[in-house]
Amino acid sequence: MSILVLGTVALDNVKTPFGQRKKMLGGSAAHFSMAARIFTPVNLVAIVGKDFPQKHIDFLEAKGINLSALIREASGKTFQWSGEYKGDLNTAITLNTELGVLSTFKPKISEEQKRIEYVFLANVDPDIQRHLLRHMRSPKLIALDSMNYWINNKRKSLLRLLKQVHIYVANDQEARSLSQEHNLIQAARALRSFGPKMVLIKKGEHGVLFYNDKFIFSLPAYPADRVVDPTGAGDTFAGGFMGYLAKSRIVNMQNIRKALVFGTIAASFNIEGFGLERASRLTRKDLNKRLAHFKKCILL
Amino acid sequence: MSILVLGTVALDNVKTPFGQRKKMLGGSAAHFSMAARIFTPVNLVAIVGKDFPQKHIDFLEAKGINLSALIREASGKTFQWSGEYKGDLNTAITLNTELGVLSTFKPKISEEQKRIEYVFLANVDPDIQRHLLRHMRSPKLIALDSMNYWINNKRKSLLRLLKQVHIYVANDQEARSLSQEHNLIQAARALRSFGPKMVLIKKGEHGVLFYNDKFIFSLPAYPADRVVDPTGAGDTFAGGFMGYLAKSRIVNMQNIRKALVFGTIAASFNIEGFGLERASRLTRKDLNKRLAHFKKCILL
Repeated sequence: MSILVLGTVALDNVKTPFGQRKKMLGGSAAHFSMAARIFTPVNLVAIVGKDFPQKHIDFLEAKGINLSALIREASGKTFQWSGEYKGDLNTAITLNTELGVLSTFKPKISEEQKRIEYVFLANVDPDIQRHLLRHMRSPKLIALDSMNYWINNKRKSLLRLLKQVHIYVANDQEARSLSQEHNLIQAARALRSFGPKMVLIKKGEHGVLFYNDKFIFSLPAYPADRVVDPTGAGDTFAGGFMGYLAKSRIVNMQNIRKALVFGTIAASFNIEGFGLERASRLTRKDLNKRLAHFKKCILL
Repeated sequence: MSILVLGTVALDNVKTPFGQRKKMLGGSAAHFSMAARIFTPVNLVAIVGKDFPQKHIDFLEAKGINLSALIREASGKTFQWSGEYKGDLNTAITLNTELGVLSTFKPKISEEQKRIEYVFLANVDPDIQRHLLRHMRSPKLIALDSMNYWINNKRKSLLRLLKQVHIYVANDQEARSLSQEHNLIQAARALRSFGPKMVLIKKGEHGVLFYNDKFIFSLPAYPADRVVDPTGAGDTFAGGFMGYLAKSRIVNMQNIRKALVFGTIAASFNIEGFGLERASRLTRKDLNKRLAHFKKCILL
């Protein structure tokens, strides 16, 4: 089954102990797509400005991403994020954010796209997320990601939206912040009570926690010994996770379990290069090979 | 096979959001023993002062711990630790440490104890640890724990000791500090190069990482939703881990795997009560019951 991802396509300026990149292709929807495409056709819904290089469009198209809902706004600049990672590369220091055309973004999708059943609302303004959601005709699985900025500044809007989605995806800080619970299991339980049947908490190098009323999964991250650039790891994880679920069509315990593992593995590749450098070359064969090793590592 | 643990028996003053306890029985060797005793006879090597209540001695004896090498020093006070946990209870704030008789501690063990093959050197001065180690006749598996204080103040002594042990057990901060590597896999590799064939990194609520030249294991913590007092969780983990290995007698991949799981489960009970309150009532039946649930949680 196809998947639809709403999010950002950005120009990223990133500095890590391994080097730096300027105006590199990035953004939540781009990272998500690199992993999801391995399992299923991906429709990307985003906006870029007049400064957005044609080579990036060509690149995404060459990866098989459907860009018919990628708006190219003639007046305005592409969303830019500038960040730096230091030390253990666990936390990004945001140096600058230029919203550009993102501030006027109104997603537009085709009639065909409105019938897509698997939807990932990557981190953008919750009002934009809800705007898109209104157009979906028969969503079967909607996952929502957000960030601390919206939790702090559009809490009401976000809480309203949470009632309409099946999975809330958050990192540990966001989960704690929105739930106001320190303990992650209690945080997951509180977030569940806000509406979404499933809660997925990303803990970076410490893996992920999946919560629903019937079971809790806890999965460590792949033991990576070389982290070049963690930007987009969370979205890559989500891409692998949602991509696998969309492909398998049935959202049950067994498939969620596999989806979590594939998301984890996809993310472990993403961090090995800057931006999309590594994830964009990712194949199902790469995933399967690392899966075999990962199974040993996590005592599977 | 019996196990010998060198460490502290202390009087702990602990405050957490769930309450506080004064002069409660604690210490690394005591916590270790509560988990190890489930699998194998435990010989405890430690020192206490004249203020140490007889009821604590009776309590440890009732738990089947061999106290023949517990020195009761007539002149001096028992080691006391005072600490507080706030928020997510992940980090202890040490308010006060009174070494007391610990500052003159010289372990003394019987001829029979010198022939014990499984040895856990819990966190005390590395010089005391080495003093004990010199007396062991035929150690088969020696594990060593330490802390940042010794890493910073007795680095040379600690590094010398590392060459003589099979397993170095550290929490993530200690592992990073001693190896001077941020990435935990690289830290484990560096620590391995210091001598010990196996490196075990405890990550608190994020589980453990086990490293040797042949394989890496990554295990999440048991998803605990009520942490009352995390004091001693690491030593309880070590007790379950070493206890299981001593009982199974063969240190291979399969048994290490099981030992990591039992250590994790034992620790998950320890944090449910203050000090030894919960761990001291722990049975093999409790462990097995939670094991079944944990296996589901970690996708086993």
